[in-house]
Amino acid sequence: MGLKTWIACAALGATVVTGAGVAVAQDGKAAENAVKVRKAQMQIYAYNLGVLGAMAKGQLPYDAETATNAANSLAAASGMRIPGAWLPGTDSESFEGSRALPAIWENGDDVRAKAVALWEASTDLSDAAGMGLDEMKAAFGPVGGACGACHKAYRAPAN
Amino acid sequence: MGLKTWIACAALGATVVTGAGVAVAQDGKAAENAVKVRKAQMQIYAYNLGVLGAMAKGQLPYDAETATNAANSLAAASGMRIPGAWLPGTDSESFEGSRALPAIWENGDDVRAKAVALWEASTDLSDAAGMGLDEMKAAFGPVGGACGACHKAYRAPAN
Repeated sequence: MGLKTWIACAALGATVVTGAGVAVAQDGKAAENAVKVRKAQMQIYAYNLGVLGAMAKGQLPYDAETATNAANSLAAASGMRIPGAWLPGTDSESFEGSRALPAIWENGDDVRAKAVALWEASTDLSDAAGMGLDEMKAAFGPVGGACGACHKAYRAPAN
Repeated sequence: MGLKTWIACAALGATVVTGAGVAVAQDGKAAENAVKVRKAQMQIYAYNLGVLGAMAKGQLPYDAETATNAANSLAAASGMRIPGAWLPGTDSESFEGSRALPAIWENGDDVRAKAVALWEASTDLSDAAGMGLDEMKAAFGPVGGACGACHKAYRAPAN
């Protein structure tokens, strides 16, 4: 990844969680939209991780272009700054269907660090995905690790 | 937008619609995942367009950082290449809940051109969003136009 890109993206986590800078009214509709957009972001992660995971497990033949597309989409999604997606009042105890534990809003620095870790691992995977199956698999692990670290700490179990 | 970025992204529409290069089995689960991920992509468009639209209409105070975040997210989402999202057999006549008209799969070149138009308008908006309300509004129009052009041609009415 080029330095310019890194600089452009490095601060991505800065407004995650605080919701600062987004003056959307915290009414029901805003909360609903917040949960929808963050679930959409997770869905994009899940789909593309599914493609790469299937290749890593040998369930889908490795293809450099497909792997690169998936990794690039993952990196693009993890680089998005959507602070309004983490509107206060949309935690699992306040909003039906949310699995975002209240601890997210109490540990901003840690959550931001975990978001940056995901983005960094994803951009590494972007660089590696087209270089061969082994290279892709090696870079895939840290992305899975970054997902898991955040889910373990901050996601409520599925009902 | 830098030339390098443009080159990196310019071919984004190349595999849209054909689904080529994604050898995911076309079973029910694959179709469901395809519809989910493209709806997620649309959701990310909708959310960020909502933020920018509210600013354009004066419902939300203009803020350069918030506008830039939203425009960057829009550009990132419209630059994603997720050919598997447009799996054949997931049109509105074949898959419940899909509003993607069968014409999408019959007009690949036009759909690709419309996808590229959205991406180009979104990257222009990315460049303009932080420069002031008037600049953002001027660049917002073409993005709305690109959304509308595709929806008018290829999206079934909501039920």
